[in-house]
Amino acid sequence: MILKPMEQPVLPERTSEKPAIVITVGDPAGIGPEIVSKAIANAEIFKICRPIVIAELGILQREIERNHLGIKIEAVSEITDQMKFLPGTLALIDIGIPDRLPEYGKVNRDCGRAAFEYLRKAVELAEEGRISAITTAPVNKLSIKAAGIPYAGHTEILGALTETIDPLTMFEIAGEMRVFFLSRHLSLIDACRMVKKDRVYNYILRCEAILNQLGIQRLKPIGVAALNPHAGEGGLFGSEEIEEIIPAVELARKKGIDVVGPIGADSIFNMSRKGAFSAIISMYHDQGHIATKTLDFERTVSVTLGMPVLRTSVDHGTAFDIAGKGIADPTNLIEAVKTAARYS
Amino acid sequence: MILKPMEQPVLPERTSEKPAIVITVGDPAGIGPEIVSKAIANAEIFKICRPIVIAELGILQREIERNHLGIKIEAVSEITDQMKFLPGTLALIDIGIPDRLPEYGKVNRDCGRAAFEYLRKAVELAEEGRISAITTAPVNKLSIKAAGIPYAGHTEILGALTETIDPLTMFEIAGEMRVFFLSRHLSLIDACRMVKKDRVYNYILRCEAILNQLGIQRLKPIGVAALNPHAGEGGLFGSEEIEEIIPAVELARKKGIDVVGPIGADSIFNMSRKGAFSAIISMYHDQGHIATKTLDFERTVSVTLGMPVLRTSVDHGTAFDIAGKGIADPTNLIEAVKTAARYS
Repeated sequence: MILKPMEQPVLPERTSEKPAIVITVGDPAGIGPEIVSKAIANAEIFKICRPIVIAELGILQREIERNHLGIKIEAVSEITDQMKFLPGTLALIDIGIPDRLPEYGKVNRDCGRAAFEYLRKAVELAEEGRISAITTAPVNKLSIKAAGIPYAGHTEILGALTETIDPLTMFEIAGEMRVFFLSRHLSLIDACRMVKKDRVYNYILRCEAILNQLGIQRLKPIGVAALNPHAGEGGLFGSEEIEEIIPAVELARKKGIDVVGPIGADSIFNMSRKGAFSAIISMYHDQGHIATKTLDFERTVSVTLGMPVLRTSVDHGTAFDIAGKGIADPTNLIEAVKTAARYS
Repeated sequence: MILKPMEQPVLPERTSEKPAIVITVGDPAGIGPEIVSKAIANAEIFKICRPIVIAELGILQREIERNHLGIKIEAVSEITDQMKFLPGTLALIDIGIPDRLPEYGKVNRDCGRAAFEYLRKAVELAEEGRISAITTAPVNKLSIKAAGIPYAGHTEILGALTETIDPLTMFEIAGEMRVFFLSRHLSLIDACRMVKKDRVYNYILRCEAILNQLGIQRLKPIGVAALNPHAGEGGLFGSEEIEEIIPAVELARKKGIDVVGPIGADSIFNMSRKGAFSAIISMYHDQGHIATKTLDFERTVSVTLGMPVLRTSVDHGTAFDIAGKGIADPTNLIEAVKTAARYS
């Protein structure tokens, strides 16, 4: 079976510089500082972007030494045209906290506060127009909570800092699939109840707008996944396809949107691997997560859209159990930086 | 990342013969006759089994000629010790129907009837103890219905013919994962409602018994998938993990079964690829189907258990749209025969 590549964004010719991408290290007690240091030690990402890390000096020095990465840190206070961005040098905006090296793998309010401040600085740089995108290493929800920061996670913090009411998440495995989620963090039975014609229709419109905004050349339709097995088998296994999804897709098609579905969830993701869709709209969190993360956990990148700045993120957590052991794999973070550069 | 192979069944030393596997061609108007002929033309399967095809002579001759397979047919009336099973020869039990060559890709009651009779003969041979397993190419539900046969599909027909009330389906990608399904053909919202402690507990017991019966060396636990995203995030996104699944797993562990879970569905299948489990119990149809079919559609084999005879099957349908075009891929059928031989 020949795999056809998915359509890639039409990149404008870079007349001047590669995009400036800010990378936040996330929770200082997790694997974030390690994978960010390892990613910067990989010369590959300098070919596609100008990477700037936001963190605290000491936590990065610790990782560079423990992992024998042989790169040096250049602390900067702002992003200037004079900066060289050469492989082997980590350009750091040093936020100065936490004020002592944290113990690995422990919930720590100072670390929660630090992770928040790194994000705040990243958003500030974005608002000043100095960077093209943000790539984030993971934060720890319990540390965030311990710091008294009233947001559940990363996306919520960024939504608040950028005053975005409803950021949109897209998962991407470059060249294989893009997946949107009709709903995310709620029980599966509640997610079933959210599959309503209006919601599906409006979501198709939003995804269409986002794909255009990202500059993706649209040779293939958007595919809408079914909710029920066998897409309901003609109403035998659930009525949501007939009553909600089909009418929504038909309405969107009447508005001129190239969208198809509902297509059985056991086929649509494999079809996407063979180049059938520009993107897939999944009907619930796990539907799209199972497909992407089972297929390629390391290359699944989360993209947050609909905010004033594009943000990409790893699809894993702080991995407190392996923090400080030198075995964390930076592949997913490097993919996230690449994705940020591609869409910048 | 090093992929560790899953435990394979401990095969008894074959003192005499390779297992006799009957292959039914399914609907004569679909791709079944083509992929079965191509599979027999592949010498590989003769290394692991003695394959006997059940079909009608003319429909196989048509495929062998159109696809230039260069194999000959040896029609037999029964399975004897004198049969040689040499590569290049297709051993056929000729059922004699349909009595004329059917048009490709059309619903046809004669084809529905023929597909049913092939299965009946296969079950008869199994009951006489002449074969070790059945591998089935796909039937067409509409043709079955047109023939007046009162069963929805393949598994239901086999259940009726073998008087099995509740056959158990397992999906397998050799070396990567085995997946059981707590429920299958019902709406997702109904599937959510079937996640009850007693059902999960009893299902763990059934799966444990089946794995032992298949002779699978058990070095790793059974993994139970969660129903809700993030395994419910401590009750925040649904209560089924806390109220139903965890108590069921704990009860099973108290009975001495090596089982773990619930584990988030976006992690458990990828963990299985790295060798973490003997098998996974998925909570609904699409959960396990998305994982296996997205990962490797061609190598996903369906195994029907709990019947007097083991049956394996392809995971695709009759593909009426490409029947007769010579482009059907026999890979999945060959995998199904291999799986049947491995467990025989």
